[in-house]
Amino acid sequence: MTIIVSHPSREKIDWWIEQLQALLPTWTIRPIHEPGDPAAVTYAVVWKPATGAFLPFPHLKAIVSLGAGIDHVLADAELPRQVPIIRTVGTDLTQRMREYVALHVLRHHRDMPTIAANQREKRWAQLVVPPATDRTVGVMGLGNLGGTAAATLATLGFETLGWSRTKREIAGVTTFSGEDEFPAFIERCEILVCLLPLTEATTGILNATLFDRLPEGASLINAGRGPHLVEDDLLAALESGRLGHATLDVFDIEPLPADHPFWTHPGVTVTPHIASLIDAPTGSRIVAANIERFEREGSVPDLADAGRGY
Amino acid sequence: MTIIVSHPSREKIDWWIEQLQALLPTWTIRPIHEPGDPAAVTYAVVWKPATGAFLPFPHLKAIVSLGAGIDHVLADAELPRQVPIIRTVGTDLTQRMREYVALHVLRHHRDMPTIAANQREKRWAQLVVPPATDRTVGVMGLGNLGGTAAATLATLGFETLGWSRTKREIAGVTTFSGEDEFPAFIERCEILVCLLPLTEATTGILNATLFDRLPEGASLINAGRGPHLVEDDLLAALESGRLGHATLDVFDIEPLPADHPFWTHPGVTVTPHIASLIDAPTGSRIVAANIERFEREGSVPDLADAGRGY
Ligand SMILES: NC(=O)c1ccc[n+]([C@@H]2O[C@H](COP(=O)([O-])OP(=O)(O)OC[C@H]3O[C@@H](n4cnc5c(N)ncnc54)[C@H](OP(=O)(O)O)[C@@H]3O)[C@@H](O)[C@H]2O)c1
Ligand SMILES: NC(=O)c1ccc[n+]([C@@H]2O[C@H](COP(=O)([O-])OP(=O)(O)OC[C@H]3O[C@@H](n4cnc5c(N)ncnc54)[C@H](OP(=O)(O)O)[C@@H]3O)[C@@H](O)[C@H]2O)c1
Repeated sequence: MTIIVSHPSREKIDWWIEQLQALLPTWTIRPIHEPGDPAAVTYAVVWKPATGAFLPFPHLKAIVSLGAGIDHVLADAELPRQVPIIRTVGTDLTQRMREYVALHVLRHHRDMPTIAANQREKRWAQLVVPPATDRTVGVMGLGNLGGTAAATLATLGFETLGWSRTKREIAGVTTFSGEDEFPAFIERCEILVCLLPLTEATTGILNATLFDRLPEGASLINAGRGPHLVEDDLLAALESGRLGHATLDVFDIEPLPADHPFWTHPGVTVTPHIASLIDAPTGSRIVAANIERFEREGSVPDLADAGRGY
Repeated sequence: MTIIVSHPSREKIDWWIEQLQALLPTWTIRPIHEPGDPAAVTYAVVWKPATGAFLPFPHLKAIVSLGAGIDHVLADAELPRQVPIIRTVGTDLTQRMREYVALHVLRHHRDMPTIAANQREKRWAQLVVPPATDRTVGVMGLGNLGGTAAATLATLGFETLGWSRTKREIAGVTTFSGEDEFPAFIERCEILVCLLPLTEATTGILNATLFDRLPEGASLINAGRGPHLVEDDLLAALESGRLGHATLDVFDIEPLPADHPFWTHPGVTVTPHIASLIDAPTGSRIVAANIERFEREGSVPDLADAGRGY
């Protein structure tokens, strides 16, 4: 019984093998490029696997995504579609994401970018902003992460809206669902948070048409995936003043290339895909527990739905 | 029946008179330096009044502080001690303060100063910090503002401690009181928030001795009053690495002078006394309501205790 590990960074592969081996001592755990007997491989633990990476392994029982999203797995055109995909989720991730969302929503709400610019110019300027109770924030995606983030914003006092594919109920949050209810949702969002999964339907959803529906000067926080955002449309919307500021954690290309205009744009805050970066010991405990449970029960609660795309 | 208004800014005096006159149409409202008949003056609405400012008015029923603190009133050595002092407090102020505290605690917790510095250098560095559930935050002062701020930090997941003069009970917060319990409180605070009132006992409380008791690299948020902090001790503690970062909303001299080292210090975030800056219409509604109630009932719930000093 072998578990293989795939990751763009060779260092990270070694690190994951070491962590998982300590937790799963009876398993053979190997890098994907040195798998030993391919027929013995039953689990693959992966982040951004290469196209066709799974073809050599006929007896895969499950693919474990090292993250909540499975877009990086589904991106493989030669993916064996019948193999279940396990997401890595849990209270540690939801806690980290609600912190990130609370921090960056508050940061926009209280206009910290302007206050920081004033400090650089030694300018004492007492801006008055409305209290959060008079500020409307919207969250796109109300799953594990978005649902918890929206509930947290509501407890901070924000007028909180949420949007998902099917209808959700969250205490303190006014919820909308589907295409039909999207216009009523989006036109009220002074601060918009994207926590959607990346699917065909959500790719490029943060585009000029959407920005034009937001209240003038709204701000954007994207902690979903880079391709949710049409990067050029954002630059144009910041330029025209339609959007006031954007905080981006995810990008089309990661790490964000050194010559990318986002790094130096005064209207863009860049964070390096750390919104809910899990600490490694916690991450490996979740992965190991999921593999053990799948092995025992043939399923786990954190199964993704490849048909749905998330 | 006359209300006089005192404020260091002549513009603000005119502004407050205009706002209050609209809400209290039957009253005569005048600037303190043009009071009309001094014997007719029954209320004084003030921010940082001059020494001896109240001596000309023998029939003052109450002094209204344009803020939650009364230190700026008690600073008057010739204050008529028998005149009650009304604080300006309420849900708008507590809401704004809990936003400020949540924002800046999260900002330190997630090490945004380093992330911002990395953006300036176009450096993609995925720092992992513990989740808030493994981070201990302490709040000094558990009154209207500190109590609500501490409760908010607890709902965000932080291990939250609080310290006050007398024992307080706040859901989710471990509370300490008095000098005796101070050491057990302070040595655990990785992020320390000061929301004390300025009194003889609290002046200079944020000093080298206190910093030495904090965990190495702790950070400080002062939203109380400037003189709580010994500014030179903070600079030395940042220099030595004992403290990692400080966010300061209040200063010995305000506006902070242009040549003050805090403006340019990489370890200091300056905000211009805006933590719970009330918007003017809300502020004047609170002040007007307090004057009307005091006139009717001879007291209000928002009375300060001049003997206690807050
Ligand atoms: N930046 C980071 O550090 C980081 C970390 C982890 C994850 N993420 C991203 O966050 C995403 C969300 O994670 P999660 O665990 O919360 O996912 P999840 O539990 O699968 O929830 C996804 C949510 O999005 C909604 N949704 C999906 N497609 C939609 C559509 N076409 N229109 C409207 N709503 C749609 C779903 O609606 P239903 O409720 O109707 O199903 C659901 O509410 C991940 O996929 C990943 O891309 C980012
Ligand atoms: N930066 C801003 O924008 C801003 C705005 C408004 C106010 N403030 C500052 O915030 C302060 C607090 O306001 P508040 O309305 O919360 O005041 P408050 O309701 O009077 O509460 C004061 C708290 O401090 C505690 N305390 C007082 N002296 C103490 C001592 N020697 N040792 C330990 N604890 C002590 C009190 O203990 P007990 O509970 O035992 O009485 C109480 O918990 C104001 O005085 C003002 O300086 C700042």
